Amino acid sequence: MDHFYGPGRNHLFVPGPVNIPEPVIRAMNRNNEDYRSPAVPALTKTLLEDVKKIFKTTTGTPFMIPTTGTGAWESALTNTLSPGDRIVSFLIGQFSLLWIDQQQRLNFNVDVIESEWGQGANLDILASKLAADTAHTIKAICIVHNETATGVTNNLAEVRKILDEYRHPALFLVDGVSSIGALDFRMDEWDIDVALTGSQKALSLPTGIGIVCASPKALEASKTAKSVRVFFDWKDYLKFYNLGTFWPYTPSIQLLYGLRAALDLLFEEGLDNVIARHSRLGKATRLAVEAWGLKNCTQKEEWVSDTVTAVVVPPYIDSSEIVRRAWKRYNLSLGLGLNKVAGKVFRIGHLGNLNELQLLGCLAGVEMILKDVGYPVKLGSGVAAACVYLQNNIPLIPSRI
Amino acid sequence: MDHFYGPGRNHLFVPGPVNIPEPVIRAMNRNNEDYRSPAVPALTKTLLEDVKKIFKTTTGTPFMIPTTGTGAWESALTNTLSPGDRIVSFLIGQFSLLWIDQQQRLNFNVDVIESEWGQGANLDILASKLAADTAHTIKAICIVHNETATGVTNNLAEVRKILDEYRHPALFLVDGVSSIGALDFRMDEWDIDVALTGSQKALSLPTGIGIVCASPKALEASKTAKSVRVFFDWKDYLKFYNLGTFWPYTPSIQLLYGLRAALDLLFEEGLDNVIARHSRLGKATRLAVEAWGLKNCTQKEEWVSDTVTAVVVPPYIDSSEIVRRAWKRYNLSLGLGLNKVAGKVFRIGHLGNLNELQLLGCLAGVEMILKDVGYPVKLGSGVAAACVYLQNNIPLIPSRI
Amino acid sequence: MDHFYGPGRNHLFVPGPVNIPEPVIRAMNRNNEDYRSPAVPALTKTLLEDVKKIFKTTTGTPFMIPTTGTGAWESALTNTLSPGDRIVSFLIGQFSLLWIDQQQRLNFNVDVIESEWGQGANLDILASKLAADTAHTIKAICIVHNETATGVTNNLAEVRKILDEYRHPALFLVDGVSSIGALDFRMDEWDIDVALTGSQKALSLPTGIGIVCASPKALEASKTAKSVRVFFDWKDYLKFYNLGTFWPYTPSIQLLYGLRAALDLLFEEGLDNVIARHSRLGKATRLAVEAWGLKNCTQKEEWVSDTVTAVVVPPYIDSSEIVRRAWKRYNLSLGLGLNKVAGKVFRIGHLGNLNELQLLGCLAGVEMILKDVGYPVKLGSGVAAACVYLQNNIPLIPSRI
Amino acid sequence: MDHFYGPGRNHLFVPGPVNIPEPVIRAMNRNNEDYRSPAVPALTKTLLEDVKKIFKTTTGTPFMIPTTGTGAWESALTNTLSPGDRIVSFLIGQFSLLWIDQQQRLNFNVDVIESEWGQGANLDILASKLAADTAHTIKAICIVHNETATGVTNNLAEVRKILDEYRHPALFLVDGVSSIGALDFRMDEWDIDVALTGSQKALSLPTGIGIVCASPKALEASKTAKSVRVFFDWKDYLKFYNLGTFWPYTPSIQLLYGLRAALDLLFEEGLDNVIARHSRLGKATRLAVEAWGLKNCTQKEEWVSDTVTAVVVPPYIDSSEIVRRAWKRYNLSLGLGLNKVAGKVFRIGHLGNLNELQLLGCLAGVEMILKDVGYPVKLGSGVAAACVYLQNNIPLIPSRI
Repeated sequence: MDHFYGPGRNHLFVPGPVNIPEPVIRAMNRNNEDYRSPAVPALTKTLLEDVKKIFKTTTGTPFMIPTTGTGAWESALTNTLSPGDRIVSFLIGQFSLLWIDQQQRLNFNVDVIESEWGQGANLDILASKLAADTAHTIKAICIVHNETATGVTNNLAEVRKILDEYRHPALFLVDGVSSIGALDFRMDEWDIDVALTGSQKALSLPTGIGIVCASPKALEASKTAKSVRVFFDWKDYLKFYNLGTFWPYTPSIQLLYGLRAALDLLFEEGLDNVIARHSRLGKATRLAVEAWGLKNCTQKEEWVSDTVTAVVVPPYIDSSEIVRRAWKRYNLSLGLGLNKVAGKVFRIGHLGNLNELQLLGCLAGVEMILKDVGYPVKLGSGVAAACVYLQNNIPLIPSRI
Repeated sequence: MDHFYGPGRNHLFVPGPVNIPEPVIRAMNRNNEDYRSPAVPALTKTLLEDVKKIFKTTTGTPFMIPTTGTGAWESALTNTLSPGDRIVSFLIGQFSLLWIDQQQRLNFNVDVIESEWGQGANLDILASKLAADTAHTIKAICIVHNETATGVTNNLAEVRKILDEYRHPALFLVDGVSSIGALDFRMDEWDIDVALTGSQKALSLPTGIGIVCASPKALEASKTAKSVRVFFDWKDYLKFYNLGTFWPYTPSIQLLYGLRAALDLLFEEGLDNVIARHSRLGKATRLAVEAWGLKNCTQKEEWVSDTVTAVVVPPYIDSSEIVRRAWKRYNLSLGLGLNKVAGKVFRIGHLGNLNELQLLGCLAGVEMILKDVGYPVKLGSGVAAACVYLQNNIPLIPSRI
Repeated sequence: MDHFYGPGRNHLFVPGPVNIPEPVIRAMNRNNEDYRSPAVPALTKTLLEDVKKIFKTTTGTPFMIPTTGTGAWESALTNTLSPGDRIVSFLIGQFSLLWIDQQQRLNFNVDVIESEWGQGANLDILASKLAADTAHTIKAICIVHNETATGVTNNLAEVRKILDEYRHPALFLVDGVSSIGALDFRMDEWDIDVALTGSQKALSLPTGIGIVCASPKALEASKTAKSVRVFFDWKDYLKFYNLGTFWPYTPSIQLLYGLRAALDLLFEEGLDNVIARHSRLGKATRLAVEAWGLKNCTQKEEWVSDTVTAVVVPPYIDSSEIVRRAWKRYNLSLGLGLNKVAGKVFRIGHLGNLNELQLLGCLAGVEMILKDVGYPVKLGSGVAAACVYLQNNIPLIPSRI
Repeated sequence: MDHFYGPGRNHLFVPGPVNIPEPVIRAMNRNNEDYRSPAVPALTKTLLEDVKKIFKTTTGTPFMIPTTGTGAWESALTNTLSPGDRIVSFLIGQFSLLWIDQQQRLNFNVDVIESEWGQGANLDILASKLAADTAHTIKAICIVHNETATGVTNNLAEVRKILDEYRHPALFLVDGVSSIGALDFRMDEWDIDVALTGSQKALSLPTGIGIVCASPKALEASKTAKSVRVFFDWKDYLKFYNLGTFWPYTPSIQLLYGLRAALDLLFEEGLDNVIARHSRLGKATRLAVEAWGLKNCTQKEEWVSDTVTAVVVPPYIDSSEIVRRAWKRYNLSLGLGLNKVAGKVFRIGHLGNLNELQLLGCLAGVEMILKDVGYPVKLGSGVAAACVYLQNNIPLIPSRI
């Protein structure tokens, strides 16, 4: 029996781990297999090819490491950099903070560009740093594409533009954990050197694969990077890629078949349709927040995120209480405010394999809880605002047209 | 790959088959077993005991027949009646119609009491028939507790009262397919002789078990009933009950384990809480329909159903088009209007393992589709009305209090 | 938690229900669906087409009825015959006995041709009866292709030959429950009028679909057959076939998807390869029995069954004790001796999705139990005999060649 | 569809990943959940308590890291040691070799004690090194309890005895990947400082959790260990243990529920019974090998492994061909010979949730393949030898006695 069983579906609206589609759950419903048989390498080969499409890269080399996003970060850093290397890193929320903490503990010399939580990366400061760095002491720029704690999406094309403007050779390392497969992401076009995500985000799988994709330049850097690494070392993967057996140690058979199914679903819907769906759901969520008279934690329209919305509550309300009651009463899982915004924001994740009516159910639940904790919301107002928009932007399910 | 894959959850709001809770899906996720081993009888024994609680009977004998509701009907009739027997049967919608058709094809002499679709059983006529039947030529009263086609719930306590008033010995046979386990149902208190349901309704399983529960009087009747039957014969079950092996032929192992899990969930939530939840969701749905300015097919408050609502659309709209678009655009499955009300009503099933936010998502979807087919609904209005009610009737999830 | 958990796999060697392959378990691992959406009819259509291939018929009409084999029997009989009709039926074991019991209870005039248990149908008597029946009072010949209780396979081609010889118009009704999809079966070539099987046998699904396939002549007969039937009536199916919605009442969504997967597996292996595999496993089992110095219940080679072997134990041993200990000690499920052969035989089912090493594990287990109950078997002898044969008849897994 | 589908069960006899019991597969068959809800910490708490029982420790602190055995190694080393630290490590096969490779790449000063492959750790040399190390320059002893490549089990009690004899304070680090939960393992009694295993071994789960258990002394060492680590850092876990939320980053929800089920099964069978079962199956395998006239790669009885047997083939046979044919013909997955013994041995894993008849099926398969590749084996001989032993050592399934 589950702990704390509640009737009906759990409404999972944290920004990860996200809902797993039934066909993916089915694909993973299996016994273990010998990963040295002909079957697993044959499967792996298709995955390595197809996962690149999600990153929009043809030149990158993907590594599907049995780890989480935190491990994927570590793999990105340790394979490309050496202790003491100067890196520029943007601090705009809890996840960029944690990455920076990791960068420091891995002994890099981290030059932090901090923004107020709710703002995006300050690219002006980046520009000035690059301008000043004629000696190219900056070895890498580290940026979280979508800061899950505040619902802020950074402009990666602009980062690339600035790097190019100053002809700066720094590696461009991107955490795409809550963006890749959901937001517009173009590894090759934006000349990203390492991009990474986790299986439990837009790919809609359980936690357990950190996918790191390296550009040829990043691969080259890995040959001389002196950071100590073994488990996360790309070299071991490359050795087994060459052997055609692909795995330096035991992968999760279940996640491989799950990833196959997840990719098949993304391709069946069409990656562009998937991104458009996230855009529609993100917009609908923001319209609801506006209708409730609440503020989006994201301070400017240019940074709004289509995968997560952090909602600021009035000072007299504890946002954690909203999250608690949502779960207790309506089997609705919302994201807590983290660190600096703990108690001040709650988060609605609208990432992954979701559709309109799931979101509208969530929004209705949020309204009832808001009222319940004493916020004078007009019940139905947010749903109405979202519906007006959605009804004018009819989704097309490709297979049902 | 599924046929016609769509992103996100399917919103299943037909009045059956209904959503299967994850713990039940898990319980059924298994290989076959020898049903003659000690394990299956041991399991079956617990099921036969516990399923009686759903019928609220201690004196009844349940039969879990590998069939559908239609088969359960046939089992109820053929085990208790003989060809030519006069039975009184109420015709109030498609499912009572189909049962009557079956009764006629099984060669009973059916005395049909017809009501307009949307009305409940006409119990006044029943009373007059019973009054007139001093010779007790009427052998059985057949009634559908909840007519799924029109969302009409009949008053079974009243039927019993009338039978008692005239001290009429007719058997009292009840189709509880869309009521048992969801609506207030009291087999013993109402002195019902045969009650039946199907696994794919309130028990939230796949189709495949027709559960028929017989009173001692019905069991007695089965000894002399002359209707031809083999597969549906209770006698074969009773023989194997006595042997302690329980099954005259192969049951579905998966459904047995699924039923075990389904009963555990119902008991964990508490049967009274389950019924209260259906009542809350039914009321919320009707308030939404009212807010939309549409009519409930059910003509009087006394008959409204807490498991399904049939919504009447204006004459210029084809309700089938609503059902079609709901599925195509929003992955929302609604019930079609059937037979006399085809094209005129669509149905929202709110039966089984559902919670508030699932229903509100459905209602939002219905609003968008209504607008889309040209009905001048105010978007958000129905959801708002439902939310106001629901927010004042906070659900308590027992395990999370 | 399961009842009576034991470590490792259950070794399921009863002649049904049989092992479900993992891909089929996966396919059924799903929520319910609206069976009136476009998806379910589209799926059903492919099933009705493909299931005919298992029967080797192009002219037959299949009905996938939510029932067991017992229900499929009833459907076959009641749709084609009228009460009082004379039918010739062969009694050779428990399942033919049960079918005859049903035939009698359905009020047919059953002319039973009995053989000793362990022998096949006595076709000489059939011939003499047909010869004598110049008035064509015999309306149907009912035969169990493979008698599961004794491991006897009847010769259907010979039955057809005799019918043709006497130009007798009797319907030819065949129980193919433990043969279709596993043994050579040719509905069209042998001019069978109704053939039937159950989902839990060679199709390797859970119990729950009785598949009945009717020839044009049988369909024609169903128009005038007077047996009372509703649930099992083909007419209702045909009506919905014409409408393109296929289902007169709610099917099991899970079994439909499961059947799709099961058929895909059969076709991927190749139906001829499947039959050859059964032949190989049947032969290996019989060689083991011989090596143990035990008798096959089947009295002549011409009747041996490739789906089940009934092994006769010496008089001083109770075969039920073998079955009990196999389950208690080795998690091995064998078939009990039934009725006349209770205590005298145990049965090894080698039907369905099985391979060589599964069978050899079973045979080793049987040896240890035989020794354990006091039979002086030489341990390893049966496995050795089976291995010698199998090693000379190397299986080819089509996908791995 | 799977790649390379074959009929029947896959016979999985590699020494990992191993068979997952059905109840564990079921437990993992679920959607994602918010790991910050009250449910996941409540579940995690029970796991952390219960997993200690498998290690036989009450004083240890377990860490369930989302990684593989390789990651668990890295966590054990980097949390307790500093770069340059001298460690003594035993090289006796491929997995100890890989661990040593990791130790060197992590910049430890590795003092390798090498044995011939097929022999156990040379504890005499250990004794002499410890005797000489009066300055206590040796900071840790690293040993693989069960070398999976050669089927060698080292004597940990003896290692502890030697350490105690010389009152040497070196940390005692043990890879229990193919032993913990299957072989006799006593963390507290043997005063082991770090013991580790992977979920895909005796716990019978998918790959994905590396479980590392640290003694109080190891925890103390972690406070000053200077190896760079972030993802594998125990400190982050300890912080969240104190907070009661347990997870520094996202765990796999599915594996947590799976681990709960796996532990429940181990406790239901009884850990001592589980170990006895492995002993019985190991012995049976070795008897079969002997009967075939082949050599066990393990050179002395004192080292034989009850979880894996490496079988040496004659020089004229390529052991890889045996593995290939086993998979192609019989759906049997055996372990390849690795590195120094590639082509010379094949391996039979008898680890995890297995029973007698599964093993006997495997042994029969191996015999047929041996014959097939030209080795003059007497078919049935190995199975016979195993059966004689097993039949005299009847397994008792606790729930079925």
